[in-house]
Amino acid sequence: MAKPRTTLRDVARRVGVHPSTVSRVLSPVTRDMVSAQLTEKVQQAVDEMGYRANPFAYSLKTNRSFTVGVLIPDLTNPLFPPIIRAIDHTLGKAGYTAMLADVNENPVTEQTILDRMKARQIDGLILATSHRHDERVRECLEEGISTVLINRTIEDESVCSITVDDINGVRLAIDHLVSLGHKKIGHIAGPQYTSTAYARYHGYMEAMRAHGMDPTPDLVVFCDDFSEEEGNRATRTILGADPGVTALVAATDLLALGCYDALDERGILCPRGVSVVGYNDMPFVDKFRPPLTTIRIPLGKMGSMAADALLELMGDENAHVKSVVLAPELIIRGSTAPVRK
Amino acid sequence: MAKPRTTLRDVARRVGVHPSTVSRVLSPVTRDMVSAQLTEKVQQAVDEMGYRANPFAYSLKTNRSFTVGVLIPDLTNPLFPPIIRAIDHTLGKAGYTAMLADVNENPVTEQTILDRMKARQIDGLILATSHRHDERVRECLEEGISTVLINRTIEDESVCSITVDDINGVRLAIDHLVSLGHKKIGHIAGPQYTSTAYARYHGYMEAMRAHGMDPTPDLVVFCDDFSEEEGNRATRTILGADPGVTALVAATDLLALGCYDALDERGILCPRGVSVVGYNDMPFVDKFRPPLTTIRIPLGKMGSMAADALLELMGDENAHVKSVVLAPELIIRGSTAPVRK
Repeated sequence: MAKPRTTLRDVARRVGVHPSTVSRVLSPVTRDMVSAQLTEKVQQAVDEMGYRANPFAYSLKTNRSFTVGVLIPDLTNPLFPPIIRAIDHTLGKAGYTAMLADVNENPVTEQTILDRMKARQIDGLILATSHRHDERVRECLEEGISTVLINRTIEDESVCSITVDDINGVRLAIDHLVSLGHKKIGHIAGPQYTSTAYARYHGYMEAMRAHGMDPTPDLVVFCDDFSEEEGNRATRTILGADPGVTALVAATDLLALGCYDALDERGILCPRGVSVVGYNDMPFVDKFRPPLTTIRIPLGKMGSMAADALLELMGDENAHVKSVVLAPELIIRGSTAPVRK
Repeated sequence: MAKPRTTLRDVARRVGVHPSTVSRVLSPVTRDMVSAQLTEKVQQAVDEMGYRANPFAYSLKTNRSFTVGVLIPDLTNPLFPPIIRAIDHTLGKAGYTAMLADVNENPVTEQTILDRMKARQIDGLILATSHRHDERVRECLEEGISTVLINRTIEDESVCSITVDDINGVRLAIDHLVSLGHKKIGHIAGPQYTSTAYARYHGYMEAMRAHGMDPTPDLVVFCDDFSEEEGNRATRTILGADPGVTALVAATDLLALGCYDALDERGILCPRGVSVVGYNDMPFVDKFRPPLTTIRIPLGKMGSMAADALLELMGDENAHVKSVVLAPELIIRGSTAPVRK
């Protein structure tokens, strides 16, 4: 059980003044209404008794909690910690605390967490969890909760989002592989309910066609999630359907790790046998065997921009805070090589 | 600006009853004091108006926030997400929300976050951040805040902690290397203000002596933090001081990654030239080049046990909740090999 906390009333009783006097001393605005001598007495009692203003009472008055909910689809994906660190840093400087939650890519869990956070009256939300069609995001907007989407977005322009130009990102990957002589390039696509996987799939189709190659359905497998296991399964399916594939573009680095596993199991060398390109440039992919060629997205910048956008929205609900689409970058490492003759 | 929320009073006004009637309907304990017809009317108004009980008012009454602070020293270390996921899961089932914060291994940041969390009246704390001598932990205990330490602990027995037998963990690593013929085994030690790095260093000294080898000071370098960069620096120092070293035991997997970097830079092969053992078995170390031999600690189990211990403490502040020391396990992969002749 929590111990009873020292109240304003306790402090007042100790000093022998009315509680409103203590209250006056504690506010910089009203402090000079009280004599210096009394101010010192009150301050001493406050320090000695460890009195802390009750934020629930304060929140009742201001209707503010100075708490922001940050929802992450899968905290075990190393993609997110650098984003979170940047959000934390930016919110912290403005006096806000991020209440972080991992929804484990589960809409039911997400709804429960959102309900709980709303019941605690968080002042705003940063969601890395949105689906292209997302009732939960819609509900937050309808309830007037300041909301910013990060990395993923929804299908219309009604909400502020900080995302990456994923169509262009995959084009960079395909251009790189084509420059190495690859023609049979497969795509390990992510779940299409996310804007990221959807754009990356369409980016793949567009880029392939731009190079005069129309991918057969055999060359694309859609994964149920962004896990290594799904990447492994998809790779086995593509290699089974078309053993002539010489390169794979995965919708994320974790899926690309699954490609590595499947290639290993079949004794196919990467990149000599099959080249692999990931997406995100998450921490540690430079350490993998082989170091992963991937598309870098600016993780820290996305986080700080999302936090800044939310701070602006929370300051003025009628503010028009612009969505931002950031540019991706190709990072060439050891998992891509010229096509085998 | 947050929109004004529907209050109990608003609902009462709409239905044309006293607010206390609405309150009675909303509590399962008092509901049968109100007629079924009126109950239905009130419930309908509550639903239509989107009324939600004000948790700040509730918290004022119960002095409970149903929020737990979870402090992580470095969220970008892949060690922590699996621990956090288990904490989240266990707390969530009990109706608590974890307010997660990354202190970035900075005591000043940590103090600020703790002050902010305490001001919000969190009901308890799980700290993965403690130092062996830790004023911040001491203050939490003195203030009567239910607190559980995880992974790291402090120098006395006054606080509930879920940790690993790190002395024994390093012994497993040394025994493995000795069985492969290694004698000149270096130690990349972590910052000694953490109980983990301290125990691992002493485990190294004890195990070496148990095998009749008394390590010279040249064989040990103390790092300022658990980063790859520090692991790299320490490895260069050890190899510079004693080029005859054939194996390195790092205090964490991130430090071991730094060993890989330093060996790479000098063109020394791992494990043929120098064997490396990490500590933690964090996600992805099986994917590194070479896959890392390491000491596994039960990340998920630690998280759920810490959450269970905290729930027990929060339920009864006089409960004596026992500290637990879990057993580590040696995981042999590709970074260790018989000593070169």
